[in-house]
Amino acid sequence: MLAEIITIGDEILIGQIVDTNSAWIARELNKIGVRVKQISSVSDDREHILTALAEAHNRAQIILITGGLGPTKDDITKKTLAEYFNAGFVESKETLENVERIFKKYNRPLLEVNRLQAQVPENCEVIINNNGTAPGMWFNHEGRVYVSMPGVPHEMMYMMEETVLPKLKTTFKLPVIIHKTILTVGEGESFLAERIADIEDSLPAHIKLAYLPKLGQVRLRLSGYGEDETILNQEITQFAQLIKERVANVVAAEDDLPLEKILLDKMEARGLTLSVAESCTGGYISHLFTQHPGSSAVFFGGTVCYSYELKESVLGVKNETLWQHGAVSEETVREMVEGAILNFKSDYAIAVTGVAGPGGGSAEKPVGTVWIAVASVNKTVAKKFTFGNKRAQNIERSAISALGMLNTLLAEVEN
Amino acid sequence: MLAEIITIGDEILIGQIVDTNSAWIARELNKIGVRVKQISSVSDDREHILTALAEAHNRAQIILITGGLGPTKDDITKKTLAEYFNAGFVESKETLENVERIFKKYNRPLLEVNRLQAQVPENCEVIINNNGTAPGMWFNHEGRVYVSMPGVPHEMMYMMEETVLPKLKTTFKLPVIIHKTILTVGEGESFLAERIADIEDSLPAHIKLAYLPKLGQVRLRLSGYGEDETILNQEITQFAQLIKERVANVVAAEDDLPLEKILLDKMEARGLTLSVAESCTGGYISHLFTQHPGSSAVFFGGTVCYSYELKESVLGVKNETLWQHGAVSEETVREMVEGAILNFKSDYAIAVTGVAGPGGGSAEKPVGTVWIAVASVNKTVAKKFTFGNKRAQNIERSAISALGMLNTLLAEVEN
Repeated sequence: MLAEIITIGDEILIGQIVDTNSAWIARELNKIGVRVKQISSVSDDREHILTALAEAHNRAQIILITGGLGPTKDDITKKTLAEYFNAGFVESKETLENVERIFKKYNRPLLEVNRLQAQVPENCEVIINNNGTAPGMWFNHEGRVYVSMPGVPHEMMYMMEETVLPKLKTTFKLPVIIHKTILTVGEGESFLAERIADIEDSLPAHIKLAYLPKLGQVRLRLSGYGEDETILNQEITQFAQLIKERVANVVAAEDDLPLEKILLDKMEARGLTLSVAESCTGGYISHLFTQHPGSSAVFFGGTVCYSYELKESVLGVKNETLWQHGAVSEETVREMVEGAILNFKSDYAIAVTGVAGPGGGSAEKPVGTVWIAVASVNKTVAKKFTFGNKRAQNIERSAISALGMLNTLLAEVEN
Repeated sequence: MLAEIITIGDEILIGQIVDTNSAWIARELNKIGVRVKQISSVSDDREHILTALAEAHNRAQIILITGGLGPTKDDITKKTLAEYFNAGFVESKETLENVERIFKKYNRPLLEVNRLQAQVPENCEVIINNNGTAPGMWFNHEGRVYVSMPGVPHEMMYMMEETVLPKLKTTFKLPVIIHKTILTVGEGESFLAERIADIEDSLPAHIKLAYLPKLGQVRLRLSGYGEDETILNQEITQFAQLIKERVANVVAAEDDLPLEKILLDKMEARGLTLSVAESCTGGYISHLFTQHPGSSAVFFGGTVCYSYELKESVLGVKNETLWQHGAVSEETVREMVEGAILNFKSDYAIAVTGVAGPGGGSAEKPVGTVWIAVASVNKTVAKKFTFGNKRAQNIERSAISALGMLNTLLAEVEN
């Protein structure tokens, strides 16, 4: 079963917003056995939308459309869908009630443009929007299903979870798709490929292997397509096992989870706690951990110590260390990580200090110079990295390197 | 001048990664007067890639392709491009030297798969990849330009900045596109639209107005298309001025910058400093500030105080306050923000404490309950918010609300 996602809105095409909806929708569709064939982002333009719908019609049986449903004049999705289906408009009573409910809740007067949101193409089934005024719309047309949803992520997600996904499962007989991902840390894509070349060659046609590299990590993803979930699962598991044994020394996890989540799980299972002292990563490492539910069982928090003063007052880094060796030095990062263990009373700690750029570099410590330390109560490991000159990447690479170092330290203690 | 972006890779279609490249490319193209007509994400599949290239050929004159250039077997972009252009392969000497240089730098043996990366279609001009082994490729074909680049963001960005954008500017006579964005905070899309309806109606056909809502903020974007930059700039500026005057009470900034960057700029201009005490936002607010170059002029840092202990030891929140009123309470958030001002010695501070969820809620304080405080040395404002039940959104909405409150407090002191 193939789907196509069409996102409508000039804001994506001029790069003002990143389309995160499509990745989320694709993941959810995959879970129920629907493969996304193509994702197309098109402009708020009548002809362009009509062409995209016609092209999608030829490629897919499920066409999910987001965006262009707001009450303002630049939003023309609803009108264009009606034209595509050659349908007139009717007033949806339940949509009007929903709009009235929302305006009453916020105690705002109902405007004419909002009342117009209850006008829908006569051939649609309305999907009520619990989080906004624009209704979702489900269309059956020439053997395809078309669903139009708002582009606001939480409004779209709610509709997908509550209505669209369950309804797709009952509408179609769906095949089975299984993905299995192995996360490796510290080995390049080509070297991994060389080490498992014979396993890759032996894969049957319905199982594919993909390499997904990202700053010091490579995800190996096996994807299987079939009819029988049990058999497919066995096949995939068997090949995954072969790969894991072959490259065991670089495998960080067998689940498709981010590294920080894997660390949280490992630490929680062992009853360990963590704190951080972030200078150049500026809260990003803390954010990575705390985006995960339940992180508070392991993660105490810590400090974002951008200034010299906070490094001293919160972490107890010695004033003479800072002035003698500088904020970006092995001496400082060691005092930071040990200060975190001592002051925040955690079992493990991470500290990062560096020159994220673009300013602040010197001949001796150019932009991209980063010192990272990880520590347990008994052991501290500090390491210097030399990244590039892009700030966002330096922050991300610093964070991933710190997670990798913590993973290694935890593994050492385990063995 | 129209462009199409084609991203190739199953990892996007199964939602394993979010396509951030396309937004970046679109922004850069817009700056030089190239409009992106469509963004298409297709699978690592020969036929599908061929179809996407042919469709793009009919829509655009500039076709930028990312992804599928790795050394492994799932990457078939190069082979498929050669087939599309009906071209044979030649060895690129400069690419081979680049691959050898990179492997020498990292002191790793050169593998056969890497040597193959120097094989390129005979009709391409090679774009050297300073950050990786896969070369970029520039093709002139039937009046169109096709450029193939790696999907790894920093490799692609380097090629775009150093080679592709400059070369596009000399290859085509480009028209002018000007965008002007006004950021508003605290008024809904429909109400804004109602207030400026007559201005919107008076816009000429070559100037469009779009509403971009995002959690409590609405960006109003005017886009103008033309030939003469000076005239177009005058027109856009004039309409922007009309809109700004009309909705002056909710305008936060006239630039298309994120709110936290606007706050940093305002505070730096006034010589003010800021610290934060983040519980449920877990470092996200700090990360928002510190992602911007030069943020250290204003932002001291602060604490991510996930645990009760850190709220007490780092911020000085009283133990009895925590036990009597709970961590999520007006009393606690006030002590947090005042503790930040006192302990971190900043002029302003932000504090956030709440139940991000999905766990940790109670009847009295359900998931989504968040207390936010902002303070100057003289004044503290605390406010309770009731968001929804999605963790990531609660974190983001808390952060944006905190920024909005700081914006208001700064404006009060200014006036």
